[in-house]
Amino acid sequence: MEFVRYKKARSGYRLGVSMAGALYDLADCYRRCRDLVGGRLPGVAAALAAASLRAFLTSPGVDAFLDALRRNGPGDGARALDTAALMLGAPLHDPGRFIGIGLNYRSHAREIGQPIPPEPPLFAKWANAITGPYHDVRLPTQSQAVDYEVELGVVIGRRARRVTMNEALDSVFGYTVINDVSARDLQFRTGQWLAGKISDGFAPMGPAVVEKADVGAAHDLVLETWVNGELRQQGHTSDMIYDVPALVSHLSQLVTLEPGDVIATGTPPGVGMSRTPPRYLAAGDVVRMQITGIGAIENRFVAPD
Amino acid sequence: MEFVRYKKARSGYRLGVSMAGALYDLADCYRRCRDLVGGRLPGVAAALAAASLRAFLTSPGVDAFLDALRRNGPGDGARALDTAALMLGAPLHDPGRFIGIGLNYRSHAREIGQPIPPEPPLFAKWANAITGPYHDVRLPTQSQAVDYEVELGVVIGRRARRVTMNEALDSVFGYTVINDVSARDLQFRTGQWLAGKISDGFAPMGPAVVEKADVGAAHDLVLETWVNGELRQQGHTSDMIYDVPALVSHLSQLVTLEPGDVIATGTPPGVGMSRTPPRYLAAGDVVRMQITGIGAIENRFVAPD
Repeated sequence: MEFVRYKKARSGYRLGVSMAGALYDLADCYRRCRDLVGGRLPGVAAALAAASLRAFLTSPGVDAFLDALRRNGPGDGARALDTAALMLGAPLHDPGRFIGIGLNYRSHAREIGQPIPPEPPLFAKWANAITGPYHDVRLPTQSQAVDYEVELGVVIGRRARRVTMNEALDSVFGYTVINDVSARDLQFRTGQWLAGKISDGFAPMGPAVVEKADVGAAHDLVLETWVNGELRQQGHTSDMIYDVPALVSHLSQLVTLEPGDVIATGTPPGVGMSRTPPRYLAAGDVVRMQITGIGAIENRFVAPD
Repeated sequence: MEFVRYKKARSGYRLGVSMAGALYDLADCYRRCRDLVGGRLPGVAAALAAASLRAFLTSPGVDAFLDALRRNGPGDGARALDTAALMLGAPLHDPGRFIGIGLNYRSHAREIGQPIPPEPPLFAKWANAITGPYHDVRLPTQSQAVDYEVELGVVIGRRARRVTMNEALDSVFGYTVINDVSARDLQFRTGQWLAGKISDGFAPMGPAVVEKADVGAAHDLVLETWVNGELRQQGHTSDMIYDVPALVSHLSQLVTLEPGDVIATGTPPGVGMSRTPPRYLAAGDVVRMQITGIGAIENRFVAPD
């Protein structure tokens, strides 16, 4: 199953679920299968009303509802949505934490001349950075070096504290595509990268959060970026220095990971900063990113306001 | 006025306000002064029910309510709370953003041998780090170098986007005391400080958020830290490299600051890491921090679990 946040013109966002190639409203599915889960699940209902995937994943009863969906599909008489009339938002617009991982692909570390770090460097983004899979991204006034980074996004579905690498995948709900947009001039003005990572719209995400079981092996995915149709990044998650179980286990030693946290797991080679000369994004550029088994996002970068 | 989050035994947290030396329940004040503000303010009522200072500061109508409080006090017949029977939580337990500033005191940069940075280095903490002004803080298992940092916390009360230094204080609601607890070994294992900043309880805060007008000049405050009664830090906000207006203005160029964001503005000299030999915190140590006109927090550090 794939989870999205969608809206129709003039109405608010709602959660949706894609099954067998058709998209359904998730609150509609919930009404149809309530009997299967033994009555009302107030936490799930509230999360659906708030259209928050984080609240949904945190809700008591979410597992029972997901099991019912897996067994029974969208429910008797469910009608698929007309996707042509819909706009998609970021599937997880309000993560509890957005944890960014730096320098996590061997060949990317090489291309920017950095040694393999002894453990993954971490940074944060906030919710203002998160935007939809096809939304425009405004270039910030104060940067002349905005760059793209395709990344596998890992969405936590179950609390994880000090888990081993063997246990780590149990706490992963699913995966998404994230563009970890980075203003290189701001990023490297001090030793701390944060200033270059946090502008509005600097984390396009989507198009869906795809359940772990539907993605297959997270260490066997191809990530690609095109800028205006030109292939710029092509990497493979097998090139990760710290793979998904290692990252989840490591982070769970530092903080208790919670449902609705997201980890942006680092980018493969081919970013604009590593080119000679560097090639940064300009107004009008269209950045398309795709990961096998997850989907593609495509964002146009527009002039500063 | 000073804003706190308090609880009685076996009940949940509530917001409180301290005026003229007495503490009142804020929802109780709201009921008493509702007529003064022209009827119900649903956003304020919801924020009070949720005991969230962030939601309160974000509520439509909060200014009218605060004005009524300033003019009329807690309302006719209001009864002060018995503070002896209360426990205080962090006044702002759910900030939209916790923005940490590094190396912001001239003499602290000197003591750790760092040059004055060209702009303030930024890092983040998440809500799991925030804890109450008198709560125990558990030392994390994986660190042998936990250090203290007394900091002036700036709480945003009004949205700020690209404000000038002259405008910046208009968006500040008030101030609090923050211990920016830092695990030095984790902090410096990679170039990014985050891993050393994010453990549970690594941001004791309080005892109150004191309104700007009651604190006076933010550039004229004394900050002090005692460990087990021994004075370890004594600094003055006039020693800041980037003062509060400069920080707010700078940050507002990078992100839109929102009500309920908090900025931890950096620490003066005297941290454990800068001593010869370094003196880190051990189980049983009691760290007391005080800032003029704001108050004191005191946390015992306890053994890892």
